[in-house]
Order: sequence, then C-alpha cells, then structure tokens
Amino acid sequence: MGIALGYNQYGKAECHMVHVDRSTPVHQITDVTVTSQLIGDFAETFHTGANDKVIATDTQKNTVYALAKQHGVGTPEAFGLLMARYFVDGFDYVTGARQEVNLDHWERITTSEGPHDHAFSRTGTEVRTCVVTKHGESETVISGLSGLVVLKSTGSEFHGFPDVPYTSLVETDDRILATAVSARWRYIGTDVDWDKSFASIRQILLDKFALTHSLSLQQTLYAMGETALEAHPEVAEIRFSMPNKHHFLVDLSKWGLENPNEVWYAADRPYGLIEASVIRDDAPPAGGVWEGVKGFI
Amino acid sequence: MGIALGYNQYGKAECHMVHVDRSTPVHQITDVTVTSQLIGDFAETFHTGANDKVIATDTQKNTVYALAKQHGVGTPEAFGLLMARYFVDGFDYVTGARQEVNLDHWERITTSEGPHDHAFSRTGTEVRTCVVTKHGESETVISGLSGLVVLKSTGSEFHGFPDVPYTSLVETDDRILATAVSARWRYIGTDVDWDKSFASIRQILLDKFALTHSLSLQQTLYAMGETALEAHPEVAEIRFSMPNKHHFLVDLSKWGLENPNEVWYAADRPYGLIEASVIRDDAPPAGGVWEGVKGFI
Amino acid sequence: MGIALGYNQYGKAECHMVHVDRSTPVHQITDVTVTSQLIGDFAETFHTGANDKVIATDTQKNTVYALAKQHGVGTPEAFGLLMARYFVDGFDYVTGARQEVNLDHWERITTSEGPHDHAFSRTGTEVRTCVVTKHGESETVISGLSGLVVLKSTGSEFHGFPDVPYTSLVETDDRILATAVSARWRYIGTDVDWDKSFASIRQILLDKFALTHSLSLQQTLYAMGETALEAHPEVAEIRFSMPNKHHFLVDLSKWGLENPNEVWYAADRPYGLIEASVIRDDAPPAGGVWEGVKGFI
Amino acid sequence: MGIALGYNQYGKAECHMVHVDRSTPVHQITDVTVTSQLIGDFAETFHTGANDKVIATDTQKNTVYALAKQHGVGTPEAFGLLMARYFVDGFDYVTGARQEVNLDHWERITTSEGPHDHAFSRTGTEVRTCVVTKHGESETVISGLSGLVVLKSTGSEFHGFPDVPYTSLVETDDRILATAVSARWRYIGTDVDWDKSFASIRQILLDKFALTHSLSLQQTLYAMGETALEAHPEVAEIRFSMPNKHHFLVDLSKWGLENPNEVWYAADRPYGLIEASVIRDDAPPAGGVWEGVKGFI
Repeated sequence: MGIALGYNQYGKAECHMVHVDRSTPVHQITDVTVTSQLIGDFAETFHTGANDKVIATDTQKNTVYALAKQHGVGTPEAFGLLMARYFVDGFDYVTGARQEVNLDHWERITTSEGPHDHAFSRTGTEVRTCVVTKHGESETVISGLSGLVVLKSTGSEFHGFPDVPYTSLVETDDRILATAVSARWRYIGTDVDWDKSFASIRQILLDKFALTHSLSLQQTLYAMGETALEAHPEVAEIRFSMPNKHHFLVDLSKWGLENPNEVWYAADRPYGLIEASVIRDDAPPAGGVWEGVKGFI
Repeated sequence: MGIALGYNQYGKAECHMVHVDRSTPVHQITDVTVTSQLIGDFAETFHTGANDKVIATDTQKNTVYALAKQHGVGTPEAFGLLMARYFVDGFDYVTGARQEVNLDHWERITTSEGPHDHAFSRTGTEVRTCVVTKHGESETVISGLSGLVVLKSTGSEFHGFPDVPYTSLVETDDRILATAVSARWRYIGTDVDWDKSFASIRQILLDKFALTHSLSLQQTLYAMGETALEAHPEVAEIRFSMPNKHHFLVDLSKWGLENPNEVWYAADRPYGLIEASVIRDDAPPAGGVWEGVKGFI
Repeated sequence: MGIALGYNQYGKAECHMVHVDRSTPVHQITDVTVTSQLIGDFAETFHTGANDKVIATDTQKNTVYALAKQHGVGTPEAFGLLMARYFVDGFDYVTGARQEVNLDHWERITTSEGPHDHAFSRTGTEVRTCVVTKHGESETVISGLSGLVVLKSTGSEFHGFPDVPYTSLVETDDRILATAVSARWRYIGTDVDWDKSFASIRQILLDKFALTHSLSLQQTLYAMGETALEAHPEVAEIRFSMPNKHHFLVDLSKWGLENPNEVWYAADRPYGLIEASVIRDDAPPAGGVWEGVKGFI
Repeated sequence: MGIALGYNQYGKAECHMVHVDRSTPVHQITDVTVTSQLIGDFAETFHTGANDKVIATDTQKNTVYALAKQHGVGTPEAFGLLMARYFVDGFDYVTGARQEVNLDHWERITTSEGPHDHAFSRTGTEVRTCVVTKHGESETVISGLSGLVVLKSTGSEFHGFPDVPYTSLVETDDRILATAVSARWRYIGTDVDWDKSFASIRQILLDKFALTHSLSLQQTLYAMGETALEAHPEVAEIRFSMPNKHHFLVDLSKWGLENPNEVWYAADRPYGLIEASVIRDDAPPAGGVWEGVKGFI
C-alpha cells in the first residue's frame, strides 16, 4: 500500500489590481482580479517542507504588478497568457500554470459637461471571466462571463413534464423566466481577437435569451450555445450554469383580486439549476482544463 | 425601580416583489424589496403574548402584494406612503409605520432586432432606497441610493494633515479616489415628483464627484451635498456614508521599474469612512426618522 | 437660506487585528475588528480641503496597533475606551470619538494529546460587539452580541392575531421558533467587569430563549431583556433586533403522508423582524449613542 | 461540422430542510441543504422543449421532503444515496444522479437548568459536506468539510524559497499560520459507518494541523492527508483547498516600539491558495465525480 501526492497547484489568489493608462489625458482603466497558480515539480515541499522550488506566492503577486507595468493588461486572455508563459517558459521546475483573470466593468461618467476624462462608475455585477491553462506547450483559454442577470416577463412556458410521484407543479403557458447566466467557452487556439469575440458572444447570448420563445430553460440555454458556436468557429465548446430564479405568481383570489401575471414573489432558495455543455463534434479534447472552474460540470 | 418596554416596531422584512405592467405589449417591470414595520399599541404581546392587536407579519406581506395589484407600485416613495397610510389610517392601534422600499434597476435588452418588448437585464449593484416614516399625521420621506461605486484616476490630492504620533502616511498630490456612495436625503414634504427629483440629485452627485478637484474626500462629499441642496429646495438634508476605497500605488522600484501612478493595488479592508450630513439651516427637525437607517449617523 | 455641515465623523473602518499574548508558552489570542471614528472641529476640510486638523485615517489605524502593543487589547470595552480617551484627551480639536470593537471567538484546539499551546479554531458566526462613544467627558459603552442563531423545535405558539384584510396565516399551537439574536445593551457607567457582565447576560439570553414557552417572539424577546436588566443593575437598557427565521411545515398530505411537525422548509426571505428596547425607567438619557448602530432603532 | 449537446445535469439547488426527530421529548434536529441533480436522456428538452422526461425540479424538491418524512435524514451520505437510488432505480430515463447534501451543525443549549430538550444554537460556519454521484450501478460518495478555520500563533516557518525576479518576501522562522480547511475525501465503497468515519477524519485533520511543526502550508496539508488515509482504508483519496490566510506582523519600529510577534494585521486579499490531492496508489479511478465540486481541482 502506498500513499502519494496527487495533482496539486498553488499560488496567490485574488490579486485585485487597477491599471491606469495615462498615455493621454483621457484615461483608460482596467480592473482585474488575478489568481496565479503554478503546477510543477513541487513534491519536496509537501514531503519535507523544502521550498527551494517554491516560487513564493508573494512573488507571484509581485509578478502580476510588474508584468502589468511593463506590458499593460490588455485583455484578460492576453494577460493570462502573458503570466502563464512567463512562469512556464522561465522556470524549469514550473511545468504548468493556471491563470484566472476576471475583469470588472467600469464606464466613463458623463457629467453635465460631457464625458469625463478620468472619472468612472462601476457597471453591475457582471464579470468577464478568463482561465488560461498551460501545460508545457499546450495552452487553453476559457473565456466567459458570470452574473449576467436577465428576465423575461412573458414568452416562457413550462408544461408536459411527467406526473411522477411527488409532482404538484402546475403547468403554465406564461411565466417569468429569469436567470443569472454563467457561461464559459473554450477556444480552439490562442490567435483570437479576444475583445471582439467576447463582445459578439455576449450579444448572441442576450439575443437568444430574449428572442427564444421558451418551452424550458434548457431549450433557451441550448439555443444560446448553439448560436454562439455557429457564429464562432474559434470556439470549441461552451458550458452554462444557469439557475432558474423562480418568480411565483401571488394568489390573491381569496380576497377577490385577480392577478393576471402582474404581481410576483421573487424567491431566493431553492432554485432550479441547469448545467450543460454545447460542443462542436470535432472539438479537441479538453484535458483537465475544466476541473476547478467553479460551478461548472 | 421599574423596567419597561421602550420603543419598538415589528413587521415583515425584505418582501422581494416584481410587478409587471402588461397594459401594452411593451412590458414595464418594477423590482422592489419592501420591509413593512408597524408602530403602535403592542405592549400586550410583549408582556403576555396576547396578540389581538398584532397584525401578523404574514398579513403585512400579503398587503404588499394586494396593494401593488390594486394600485401598482409606481415609485418607491409613492408605494411607501401608500403602505404607511393604509396601516396608520386603517387601524386604531397602529399609530405609526416605517416602510422601506428599495428598488433594483433593470434595463430593456437591446437585441439585434432592437429593444425587446419583454426582456430585461439587471444593471448593477446600485439600489434606489426609500424609507417612509409616518407617526399619526406626520409623514417623512427619506430617499437615497446605495452602491454607486465611482473612481477618479487622478484629480485627487491629500496632504497637510497633522504629523501626530503614529503618522506614517506620505502626502500626495495625485492619487486614486474611489468610493461607494451611500446617500440619503430627507424631503420637507410629500408633494414631490419623486422620479424627477431622484434623477436630478443622482446626476448632481455624479457631476460633483467627477468635477470637483479633490483635496479630501470630505471636500468632495460636501460639494456633492451642497449642490444637491442648492438645486432642490424640496430637500431638507442629505446624509452620506462614503468609504474611502483605498488604492495603493505598487512600489516596483526595487526591480528598477518606475510606476508613475499606473499600477495600483485595490485594498479591501481597512478602509476610510466619511459620514456627514449637509443640512438646510431652516430644516424641520428630523425626529427619530434617521434611527435604524443602516450605516447612517 | 443657508446650507451647513451637520453632524459628521470620520475614521478608519474594520482594522482586523490579531493580538497574541506570548507571555507564557500557552498563547492567548484576541481577534478584534476595530472601527475608529473621530468627531470634532473638522469643518475646514469639508469646506476648503484644508486638512491641518484631520488626523489621517491611516494614523488612526496605526494607533490601533500601537496601543494594542503597549497596553494589550483586553476586553473590547476596555480597548474602545482606551482608543476614545487617547484621541479625545490628546487632541484639542478632537471633541469626541466613536470606537467600535468587535470580537471574534476562537477556542483552543484539543488534540489527541490534549489542549494545544498555540493552535486554535474559530467558533461560529457569533460576534461580541462593542461601541464606545465619548463626547468630551461623557462616555457611553454599548456592549452586545450578534449572530447568535437559536432554534426551538417546539414550545412556541402563535394565535389570536386579528383577522384583518389580507390575513391568511393559520393559527398554530406548535411551531418552530428560530432567530438570530442581535442584542446591544447600554451600560450606566464604565466601572464594570466587562467579561463577567457579558458572559452573564449572554447566558440569560440563552436561558430565557430556551425556557420561555413562547406565545410570540415579542414575548420571548421581552423576557430575555427584562431578566437581563433585573440581574444587571449596571445596564440601563437593552435593545434587540430579532428576525423571525420562518420554518414552514411541508404539506405532504397530497401524497397520503402525515407530517406531524417533523419536516420543515427553512425559508430565507421575507422574514419577520421584531425590534424593541427594554429599558430601566430611571435610565440616563441615551443622547445620540444609538444612531448609526446598524439595524437598531 | 456538427454541434451537439454535451454533458448536462439539472435539478433543484439548495433545498434547505430541518428535520425534527420527535420520537422522544428530547428532540434531535438535522439541518441539511440538498441539491438534487439528475442525469439522463434529456436531449429532447434542449432541442425542442419537449419535457416528457423532465422530472420537474419542483418534484425533486418535494421528493427531498417526502423521503425525509418516510426514512428520516440520518447522515448526509445515507440521504444522498437514498435520493440517488430513488431516482436512478425508479426511472428508466434517469441514468444518473448527483446529490449534494450539506449539513449545518447545531448543539443543544445548556441552560441554568441543564441541557434543554428542544432548544438549540448554531455552531459555527463549518459545514459537513457530501456529494453522492451515481451512474447506473456505480456509486461514489465524497464526504468532507468546509469552513474549518484554524490558526497557529507559532510553530510555523517559511524560508528557503528561490530568489527569482520580483521576490521581496522576507524569510521567517516564526509566523502565524491560518487557513480555512476545505477537505473532501472519496470513499472506495458505500458500506461505511459515515458518522464515525467523518468524526475520526475531522479529528485527524485538527490534530495534524496543530501538531505539525510547519515549514510550509503544503507540508502541513500533506501530513493531514497522509494521516487520514493511513487511518482510513475505506478512503481512496482526499483533496484539500486551503487558503493561506495571511497575518502580517505590524512594523512599529518607526515609533520605537518592538513587536515580537504580538500584533498582527489579518489581511483579506490576496491570499495564498494551496490545492492538492493525497491519494492511495491503488485507488479506483475517480471518473468525473470531482467535476463541478466547487474549488477543487
């Protein structure tokens, strides 16, 4: 019988950095939260505490800042690749890296005098996400978004489900459909216009959510994913984790009031949860790049 | 020596309701979270558990829904007044009410085919807040906003502070200034165009945050409040709770890299905290309406 | 018409500090989160940005550490008084201070070899709270606790409430009663054995919650407060904010299953909310010390 | 080129249920949060919205309650297996299930009159976790815990790391080591005394955290995992996700104060993050059971 170290990685999580591009008086800001993790020949520190190959997590944090100063941040994808290549190409004992770069959105404040040069406001809870995984020469970029909360006040039905034991749900041909879209898509390569691809996929997700007359959240999800893949040959696969944020019609009949889908109680828990992958049939294998991506199967 | 019941109130907190206006195919949605609290002659339940004057909190929740069905929600202020008057005017043993109505913002989704009739996306963490307090005939409306996160990448200085013991902060004439504005303003009366007043004050806050060259967050705060009061005679007082969300310039000099205010570490805790009221000198007294308003002095 | 600065305070919020008493090999740790706020002659910085009386919030943070080093932390109350006196007594332009000191609990780990000298585990979400307010010579200490989550699986009734419009709640003589106790009590003076008083009041709250056969959460609350005041003449007043964390009995009758108070759905929102003060009739006036204490009326 | 549905699952998330065992006057309560997900022949709903094989997520929620009524909850593992077998064995088109059952801990309140029959208080943020995955006949149980926050005030060193570019961390032979242990262990079979195994492994984790003189968090982690596997032949593998919750010694030297490891600043972000598996070399393959387990690689 033997016991051994299995897969492992380590690093610095959630380095929250704001980069200001001051090259003109009209500033640009980039707000990212970076989690740097390294993979490699680190068994010794687990077994004996010898750290001679353990690049300190503090150093990984400093590297985030130093590379941002020298190269800018650019897109989450580009910065994740920059970090991963820096470590994997630069140190023999680092054989892989996982760099997670999440981008928070800000917009320029429009004052009574027009768009301001250097004042910004945060827009929403939506986060642009990115995980770059590099093992030796093999690089995989998963981009995505989370916290995109959307709702349709009609155009959603749910019926025809089986009447198995413990079923009491009533069929409906008109309900509120609401969800917080978390989507992650895996690119085939790394020669991509990241901003353009992101913006287009995001718009497709919104479009198909809005324009699909929904018979189930699953159907909506699939339409979103299929359309994204059809339009983006650079994407191998897209995965979704979409809660069904229930809105229950309030029964006011006991007080003689009709409620024709006007007043709804927005529930917190429990909630439905639909998770699925839509994938190109000639997609390259994913390897383990999806493991550890929170909430994704 | 005697021990007695002091001030008390009770009710149902955080009734999350979505109201859909379906009067035309172009739906409008209103997403509010209502906390209803009643004040009155309730000592008996505290002393003996006799509940004959205790309108159940469940009933208060149902009333939120039923009034929304019959009257719509309209603005947070109008709905808060509607609720407060319903209870105080309708029940002898209810002498007062506190109704908190917070509004979450949604925007209509613009698809590739144009603005959608019934699909919406959530915009941000900013909440429009409202607390209506009614004691007998006396009604006070406090409107506000929270979670308006703003940042200036320059145009902010901080120096001239005293060199008392334990001072080590370095003076600066160029820093990032960032905060999450929580502001609450108390109206003099209730005959107000609530939406118009809110929109104007919000724009003033953004304007003055952006356009004030800041020597301290206090100075910025006061400029925001003073301008709001000057433009809005219907407002007696405005209070702010504004964290100073520190961004620290990263020192890269030990690796020979200059960092001319480009790369910043965004810190979580601790943070500065500035709380202040800006008030009209002929403002009517507030009574106790500010008590229990979270985070406000 | 004039507009003026009203009440204001400023400082550093949430300085999270761990103090280790290493005077013997059996270490003691004290984990506090301190929010220091100063009150005084600070109008100038609001009006012009002149900061010559503005003790930097960074300095306030350093003072937390420096005083902890020199005097230890001791109890939250003692440390809050130490901080408040340091600032108010030491600086002419500081006329008041508000020091909030929250304590997180840790317990010593018991290993297979017995209690460990220097290893600890966190116990729970309960926080011991303290707000010290000092205006000139006048000092007020409010101690408390929050996050004490308790539940009774029987011994709670709720009936006899009025059948007003929109009432649909069913009367019950056996329900689950659950709450998260937030309690704050105001001391008459400052010559108190803080730890002893805290421990005794906390035990009384637990006792009365458990031992009161409840006809309403209000009744339970009052019994908790009255008993605390009776036993503690050093306390002028105690305030509670207690959510009624609803547990709804699941109706399984449609599948022929009885459910005699065994299976409950624990709801999140909305929730009942009972807020009340129990006060000694000869209590000294509170002044404004309760303002800004989150969630307390 | 084809696009197809990939792996998918759906269900009801976070059904928060409290079960009361009233078989004697001394009640026992079990507080679980169940996420039920089904795997099977569900492509049709994705493609056309036909739901005739889609057991409603509402039905899954009802099943949680109904099975709890009929069989009790018992351990998280037993209840997860019960749910999974109910669905997979009962419905042709359900080929697999993933049941997550998280247990919150309560302890009986000890009043001044002794342990109470039916009053309880919540203990801490620690959660006992369980994920049961069943594909056809194959069943895998992963048990674990999260939120076990521990700290050593000495007995931890960190030095000998390489001086690569951007390294500025100072070596130390005495630091605070603090983490929030998330651990998950995969059982080889299902014929296990779940409570006994859980309690023993939890105690081992605490023991080894406390008793290991640490040269790196990795070393501590491995000692914890190795010891657990040595003592528990029923466990194939244990995985950890352990943040290094940094405590930084405050430098008070500029004010002439020494700080011999007494006063520490407890930082929030960024934090170190160590993730690793310790595995038996003859462990059966995991299949995909770790996918989607939050925060685990």
